[in-house]
This record gives sequence, C-alpha cells and structure tokens, in this order.
Amino acid sequence: MKHLKHEESTCYDGSQIEPMWAFRTFGIKDSSIVSWMGSMEIIPDHLVDFEDVGLEIKGNKMLHFIIEHFDVQPADINLCYHRQRIFVMIIKDMLLDLGIKTTRNGDDLYYNKKISSTEKGKLSVSIATCSISSMKIHFALNLTEKGTPNDVETAGILESDVDIKMEDIYNFVDEACANYIDEISSIKTDISKTRVF
Amino acid sequence: MKHLKHEESTCYDGSQIEPMWAFRTFGIKDSSIVSWMGSMEIIPDHLVDFEDVGLEIKGNKMLHFIIEHFDVQPADINLCYHRQRIFVMIIKDMLLDLGIKTTRNGDDLYYNKKISSTEKGKLSVSIATCSISSMKIHFALNLTEKGTPNDVETAGILESDVDIKMEDIYNFVDEACANYIDEISSIKTDISKTRVF
Amino acid sequence: MKHLKHEESTCYDGSQIEPMWAFRTFGIKDSSIVSWMGSMEIIPDHLVDFEDVGLEIKGNKMLHFIIEHFDVQPADINLCYHRQRIFVMIIKDMLLDLGIKTTRNGDDLYYNKKISSTEKGKLSVSIATCSISSMKIHFALNLTEKGTPNDVETAGILESDVDIKMEDIYNFVDEACANYIDEISSIKTDISKTRVF
Amino acid sequence: MKHLKHEESTCYDGSQIEPMWAFRTFGIKDSSIVSWMGSMEIIPDHLVDFEDVGLEIKGNKMLHFIIEHFDVQPADINLCYHRQRIFVMIIKDMLLDLGIKTTRNGDDLYYNKKISSTEKGKLSVSIATCSISSMKIHFALNLTEKGTPNDVETAGILESDVDIKMEDIYNFVDEACANYIDEISSIKTDISKTRVF
Amino acid sequence: MKHLKHEESTCYDGSQIEPMWAFRTFGIKDSSIVSWMGSMEIIPDHLVDFEDVGLEIKGNKMLHFIIEHFDVQPADINLCYHRQRIFVMIIKDMLLDLGIKTTRNGDDLYYNKKISSTEKGKLSVSIATCSISSMKIHFALNLTEKGTPNDVETAGILESDVDIKMEDIYNFVDEACANYIDEISSIKTDISKTRVF
Amino acid sequence: MKHLKHEESTCYDGSQIEPMWAFRTFGIKDSSIVSWMGSMEIIPDHLVDFEDVGLEIKGNKMLHFIIEHFDVQPADINLCYHRQRIFVMIIKDMLLDLGIKTTRNGDDLYYNKKISSTEKGKLSVSIATCSISSMKIHFALNLTEKGTPNDVETAGILESDVDIKMEDIYNFVDEACANYIDEISSIKTDISKTRVF
Repeated sequence: MKHLKHEESTCYDGSQIEPMWAFRTFGIKDSSIVSWMGSMEIIPDHLVDFEDVGLEIKGNKMLHFIIEHFDVQPADINLCYHRQRIFVMIIKDMLLDLGIKTTRNGDDLYYNKKISSTEKGKLSVSIATCSISSMKIHFALNLTEKGTPNDVETAGILESDVDIKMEDIYNFVDEACANYIDEISSIKTDISKTRVF
Repeated sequence: MKHLKHEESTCYDGSQIEPMWAFRTFGIKDSSIVSWMGSMEIIPDHLVDFEDVGLEIKGNKMLHFIIEHFDVQPADINLCYHRQRIFVMIIKDMLLDLGIKTTRNGDDLYYNKKISSTEKGKLSVSIATCSISSMKIHFALNLTEKGTPNDVETAGILESDVDIKMEDIYNFVDEACANYIDEISSIKTDISKTRVF
Repeated sequence: MKHLKHEESTCYDGSQIEPMWAFRTFGIKDSSIVSWMGSMEIIPDHLVDFEDVGLEIKGNKMLHFIIEHFDVQPADINLCYHRQRIFVMIIKDMLLDLGIKTTRNGDDLYYNKKISSTEKGKLSVSIATCSISSMKIHFALNLTEKGTPNDVETAGILESDVDIKMEDIYNFVDEACANYIDEISSIKTDISKTRVF
Repeated sequence: MKHLKHEESTCYDGSQIEPMWAFRTFGIKDSSIVSWMGSMEIIPDHLVDFEDVGLEIKGNKMLHFIIEHFDVQPADINLCYHRQRIFVMIIKDMLLDLGIKTTRNGDDLYYNKKISSTEKGKLSVSIATCSISSMKIHFALNLTEKGTPNDVETAGILESDVDIKMEDIYNFVDEACANYIDEISSIKTDISKTRVF
Repeated sequence: MKHLKHEESTCYDGSQIEPMWAFRTFGIKDSSIVSWMGSMEIIPDHLVDFEDVGLEIKGNKMLHFIIEHFDVQPADINLCYHRQRIFVMIIKDMLLDLGIKTTRNGDDLYYNKKISSTEKGKLSVSIATCSISSMKIHFALNLTEKGTPNDVETAGILESDVDIKMEDIYNFVDEACANYIDEISSIKTDISKTRVF
Repeated sequence: MKHLKHEESTCYDGSQIEPMWAFRTFGIKDSSIVSWMGSMEIIPDHLVDFEDVGLEIKGNKMLHFIIEHFDVQPADINLCYHRQRIFVMIIKDMLLDLGIKTTRNGDDLYYNKKISSTEKGKLSVSIATCSISSMKIHFALNLTEKGTPNDVETAGILESDVDIKMEDIYNFVDEACANYIDEISSIKTDISKTRVF
C-alpha cells in the first residue's frame, strides 16, 4: 500500500471517489492513499451519500485523503466502513497530539470552538463506498471554515486555539497516512500468529 | 447485540475465548459483549496467541470484555481484528476522558507511569480469533499491576495519577460496551444510505 | 428489518427493484419489506429478468412486495434467490390457509382455476437481484386477471372459488411480511446455538 | 448432486452429521443427500445443537436425510440454514399432498394429532452445521411415536389419520430428494438469467 | 459448464466480455465457454483493461475464447484471474504438443519467431473481469500477424515453423475447452475428498 | 510472501500441512513457501487426503514445498486448489526447461520413463487444505524412486534420461518459489488495472 501526494489546489468534486481513480490518474497498481490540500465542491452526479442529496457539501481549503483497497476480493463495504472508522480514529488521536481535542460521532469529527461553550463545529466529512473489486474512502478535514455551508456549524483546524504551522500540517498528513498503512499491515501480521477454532 | 455482566471474581483462564461460550454459559442467542472484573491466568491449552506460547499471561484484577459476533457468515478473522482495533480505540478515548492518556500500538495500550519519564507500562492484553461461524475478541485492562508478569513493565488504571472510584469503573464498563455496540450499529446504518459502483 | 406500507395505486414499473429504492423513497436505513396494492407495467429499461426481454409483464391489480437486505456483505445473489424461494413458500402456505391451494415451480405460483380441470393459471411474478451492497426481491400476486398478458394463462386470488374480503387481503399482507421477517430472524438465532466443525 | 440410499436399520447416532461422512462411508465425491429409515439415538459427543445438551433426542423409526453441500466455498452456515428451511418446506408441502397437514415453526414440523383438538405432536428433528469446506443438514421425520422422548409430545406419520403404505413412504423419500436437488439447481439457473446492478 | 461454438467471422469488439453476453446471445443458462475464429477490434467504450486505454488492440484472425462462470457467488475477480492463468497455462501446454514452444508472462504468451534469435512475438491477448454475479475471461490467440498493431512485435501460430492444418486448429479449440472444463471440475472433486482443519 | 529454506533431511510426516506450522516452527508472520529436500512418511493421523486412507504415501528423497497463504479471509479451499494447480503447472513448465517432459493429471505429474514406451511413473504427490484463516499446499517431487510405494509405478527426476546436478536442483527450487510468488503477485497487480461491471 502506497502513499501518494496529489498536487495542491485540486478541487474534490466527487469524481475521485470512483473506483480505479488512482490507477487512471497516477498509474498506481496497488492499494493506495492519495492526499492533497484543496477545495471541495461535489458535483451532484458524483454524490455517494444518498443522505446528502440536495445538500451543499463544500469547503475552500481542506485536507483530502482518498483511500483505495484491493486486498479483499470481492470488496466488502462493511469492512470498508470499519477501515473508515479506524482512519477517523487515527486522525482524532493525532489531532489530540497537536492539541486539538475533538469528539467523534460515527465518521464525523467535531471541535468545541470555544472551550467554555458547548458549541461544536463540524470538522470533517467522510464517506466509504465500493465496486465489486475495490473499496474506497474519502475523508476531508476543514483547514478553514471559509466556504463551508452556511446551514451547518463548522470549524477549521487552522482557526482553532492552537497555533498550527503549515509544516505541522504536512507532517500530520504524512504521519496519518503512515499510521493507517501500519495499522492495516499490523492486522495482517496479527492474523498470522493467531490460533483459530 | 447485547451487553451482559458476568459475576465478579471469575478468573479468565482462556476458556472464555472459545466460540459459543456465551451461549453455553448464559444461553444468549445473539451477538454479545460479556464484561466482568476478575483475575487472569491462562491455561496453556487455551492459548490463542501463538506468540505467547511459554509466556505468563496473568494479572490479579482486570476488567475483562468478551465479544462474540455472529452477524458475518462465514466468520472473518480480518474483520474481527478490525473490530478489535475499534474497540481498543474506543477504550483509549474513554480512558482519556477519565484523565488517563495512553498510547496505542496495535491492540496494546500503554500508560506513561510517571509524567516526567518515558517509562511505559503495558495496560492491556487482547486477542481476536474465530471459528467458521463466530468472531471472538478478548480485551482486558489492568486495574492493578499486582499479579502481572515480572518480566513485563505493566501499569494499572487504579494506580495512575488520577483518582478513579469504583463507581467510575462500573460506568466506564457500561459505556464502553454501549459505545462499541453503537459503533457497529452505526456502520450498518451507514451502509444502507451509500451509493455503490 | 422493517415492514413499510406504500400508498396504494402505485404502479410497479420496475424502478422499485433498484438498490436503495426504499432509502431514496422513504428514508429507511435498514433492511425492509415494502408492500402495496397496485398495477404493474414494467418499463423495458428496468427489466431485470433477461428471459422476459420483449415480453409483456403487467397486471391491473396486484399485491406487491419489495424486499431489500443489507445484512450480508458483499450481497450474494445465490442467498437472495434462496430467500426469494422461502418468501414464495411462505406465501404458498398462507394462501392454503386462506383456502387457495397452489402449486409452485421455482418462484412461480399457479392456481387450478377449476377444480375439475388441470388448467393452471399463473398467479405471481417474481425476481431477485443485487448490487454489491444490497439484495433485492420483488414478488407480486395477481388479485385479478384483468390487465395480465393475453398470451399467458393467469389467475387472480379475488377470482378464485374462495370468498376473500379486502380485510383478509390486508391481514394476509401484514402476516406475510411478519412471517418472513420472523423466518430470517429465526435463522440468525439458530446459528448462535449451533456447534460447527 | 446425488441421492444415495443408505441401508435400512442404520441408527442415526450423530456421527453422520460430521463433514465428509458421505465420502468416508460411500466414496461420493460430490454434494449429496443420503436417505434411510432407522432409529435415532444421539451420542452426546456428536451433539451439534447446544440447546439439546442434556436432552434425549431419539426415536425408534424415522426417515433420515443427510445433506452435504460443497458448492459454496467457504461454507456458510447462514446459507445452510436457508437451505434447511427450504428442505423442511418441501417436506411440509409433500406431506400435505399425502393428506397430512402440518404446521411449521422454524425447522420443526408439528402434526395436529386429533383434528378436533389443538394438541400438536412434534413430527421432526433437524439441525444444520458446517466445517470450512462443507455444509451439512440432518432432517428426520418420525414414522412412529415409539421410542421418542417421554417429555415431548410427538407424532408419527404412520400413526396419523391417513392411510400410508410403505410404498408411499419410499416414493416420498425419492421425490423429496429429487425436489430438493431440483430446487437448488433451479436457483443456479435463475442466477444466470438475472441482470444485476 | 458448456462449450459452445460461435459462428466464424464474428469480430471481437469488446462487447462479448460483458456479463450475461452468452445468455443474451445464445440463451445458455449455465457457466460456459464460447469459442470462435474471427478478427478483433475493440471499441474504446468496451475496454476493460485500463492499461490499454489509447492503444490499438486488434488482429485480423484470432481464436477467441469467452469464459463465464456463475459457480462462485458473489463473483471474485481474484479467483477469476487465477482461472485465467490456468486457462493460459493449458493453452501453453497444448501449443507445445503442437510443436510450438512459447514463454509466458502473466497472461501473455510469446513465441520465439526464429529459433536462433531471441526476438519474441506476442501471441495472445487476455483479460478477466466480473460483475457481482459472474466472472468473465477473454483469451485470444493470433492465427496470423496480419492486422495486429504496428507498434507491438506479434506472432501468429499459422506463421510458425510448424505445419499446422485447419483441422488441427479445430481440434485444438475443442480440446482446450474440454481440458479447462475438466480442470475446474477436478478441483471441485478434490475438495470433496479433503480433510480441513 | 517469503521463501524460506528448511534444513535438509527433515522428514515430511504430514504435520507440516497443519495451519500455522511455519509460524510455530520459524516465526514467519506472513504468507510463505518453505522448501527442503527430505524423505516422506505420513503418519496416518496427519493424513489430509481421505482417498489415501490405508495407503502408503512415502519416498526416500523428495523436494518438498509447503505453501501457506493468509491473504484471503476467510480461507477458501476452492481458491487454494486453484493455486495448487498453478504451482504444479509452474513446476511442469520448469521441468520441461530442465529437459524433463511430463504429463499432468489434476495435481499429479507423470514422467515417461522410457521414451519408446508408454509406461508412466508418478513423479509427485500434492494436497491442499485449509483452516478458517489459512490456506495450505504441500507439493513434493521424487528425486529418486527409492522408498516409494511398491504398488505404484513411480519415477524420480534424478533417474531420468537427463543429467541433472544438485546445483540444478537448488536453482530449480529457488526459481520455482520465486516464479510462484511472482505469479500470485502479478494477479494482484492485474486486478488493480481492470474495469469491472
């Protein structure tokens, strides 16, 4: 499984969630995580979350992660959502190490915008999906609230109480991808030492 | 999926990891989490982690969780280890809410015994396994270091810097089980709203 | 798994067999059976049974059942056809309790229109299909022969020798759905008490 | 899939539910149904239904059917229980054609011993199980109440109000096996004509 | 599983790789191999190998084999590629028996056009794919180099050093299909005699 | 996936076919091929091929290969037998390159001991099996006829018409393992470039 960095300023329009996007764009013949920083504006035809039909799903500056797994055949959306949860929990843990304490609800992360208040801002969007041969995950983290929908209270990690530099962001992305790849790999290792019934 | 509380003082001897243990012991015809507080001393014949052959796996007072899933047929040890990771991450998050910051490596949690030092104590043991029809997870958290193996640096949450009452422990167990059950349930819900390719 | 009643007079045009139809129409985030009384006229583009290409599949007044299962991932058309057979056999049993003795051939039910003759009328149509994440079944029972294809000998349960009231029909639908949901549930229960090898 | 007749007077002791029994006993290299008439007395070590632990499961004269499927790999106890239900429903339908109206609850058939009363006698026992490579079903129908457990109200089809000859029984067995084999085969055929999404 | 001969001179345009093609064209309700002799010119919309996007995939006279399997549900592209490899290795073995020694790289066969040189000509094209319910393989062998892409060094078995008659070709096709069908069948037989753990 | 060389003179007694043998013996936490040169004498309790019950399965000097795969969960004996066939066909191809032309029947290789005759000697034994989490293959090639069963016509590659040195044997083993590992890996690569339906 490989981590590949996509060029910044690419807009996530939903086309990147399609199976084989990484192969068709970068020629990667392997499971992969592609990461980049960019805006989001999902074209309705590319919407995968039926619950979002008719809603605006957008942001001006987000960290995007597109994960594709070919290791399980046929692809299994149940497993894929488990991996999505693991990825989100890895991100949550790493944000805490940056000083940003979040709460999680399913695949959503929230940030208490003011410590004294209970007002929570939605920090992320995520979806998982699959075709018969590949499992895909999109996770994106707001860097800023700018450009996010008006009807949702959002938050951006660059606008938190914590001083975060762009260098921190770059390291964060690299480590998040490395941690996730290690996690999936450690599961494979654990299987090979386990007695079954 | 049901949460059932086993009587305290039961020793985890490894027999509880066997498939159908919850049905044979409690008559539960469903996926389940059984929790209890008790010692651990694994009988070698019940050892599931081949890496632990010849090692002492024990403790005087631990929180035990035995999870069994029948929802995926045939059982899949790969999915089961993903669920184990999710459970461990839920525990990690909840320990933090109690004031106990831990680090995680695969399915192991560690506690920095003294804040100023880097000496880490192993706080937990865990394994996943399966038969053709059920997926099983055992996770146990040291309440105390007493009775843990001499050759491993361990830690117990009742011996941390944080003042934890027994009532907190009981609530912790109930919430951990509820959170895990909710998580698995939320994944099923997410599947039913997702467009696939 | 939930039973939901759709508004009467809805025409089954084949679009209802598409995956996620129940979520997109009613917002149900679960496995479901949707039932209603209405006509049928399948738009060729929505045809799922390749054997029916070029044929008329229609009727003026039918009981429609649309089943969707998300419990098995990835979806399995083999299992889905087994469930279809179970549903059809439940219907056959219940029709007998109403006084209507039918014969079954695969997923088709037939009614001896005159007891003295051997002329059988086709009483039902059915198909099963799936996407990677959901299994779908359509089953429809003729209430009347009106509007059914001219080139097929059909029958309608309201035109049988038995006096059936609309109230019987409504109860029949409710019980059929309840029985099917119970059957699938009883299988899950049986698994959790069974020793495997 | 083949039907093979075992010699009469063989006692079902539970060993026949073990995977590969048909190959080890008859050398059949295929999915199979083996049928015979004989007594039943299950040796506790061979018990597969954990709910029956400590109970007597026996009868003097029963029709036994042992089904083994290798067509689905890995074996799936969920599918296996669906097939068991289909087999039981085929038997129920065929008993009706013999004049014996039964009621079904899961995998159990009951007979109203006296038409005027509501006293039901249990007519059958059944279990499904599997190893990683094969799915097994045992179904047995009481011919007589003799030798059945004292603490369960049972019934035998030779003691019903209907006059049944041994020749009818032999035909019944042959047809039951043929009908089941045809049913499973018809499902495979239906799959190959179905459009999927 | 059946072997069916398609009419000669049919052009392989890529539409034949679509699931259910054999049912829609010939009404076969079973797993099948369809074989014929004909040209190839793949319409871009029908391209299944993303690596071939923008390339010419063509030839004037080839032996085509289209395999479709329904025996494994849900379909598994991993298994399908294993079967493709087995098919290609059967072809390689049989070409050797005809006197044509080839080398294989994945799913490609190459022929040393002149014994003294190391110049290899590509002798075949192949792809595997699947839908949720069927697994498909296309394999085609050049009879002649005519019409093959200019930018690839190709070879044709009718232009080899060996004298091959059309009768040999017809026998070759029949035997290749029979051998493949036997191979898959022998695997099913082997499973039914194997002890598992 | 790793290739590991076991010490020579180890006798294959059937225990090596058990799941997790490579981890328990060598600590390998991965899919693996273990190879060695040694005798074979299978202890009846370790027999996996039920067809061999009561037969002698032995030889004085053989090349042994034990393959274990953890990449597919749950393990699938159908896929495992496909991989076994691929391994045997790779061996057949490589023997030909050594000058030894063999014929294959399922998983058995045969050698024409004298070119002028049709007397074939059995050159190999093989079996595949699995537990719920791992797929295992044993393949062994006779180096000599010595010690093979009296009632089977066998052959040994060191007793063929071809002059083979021990160095050739060592290279053969290394290449066979490398080729097999490459083959399985190439299939994974092919999946990631394939459009599905």
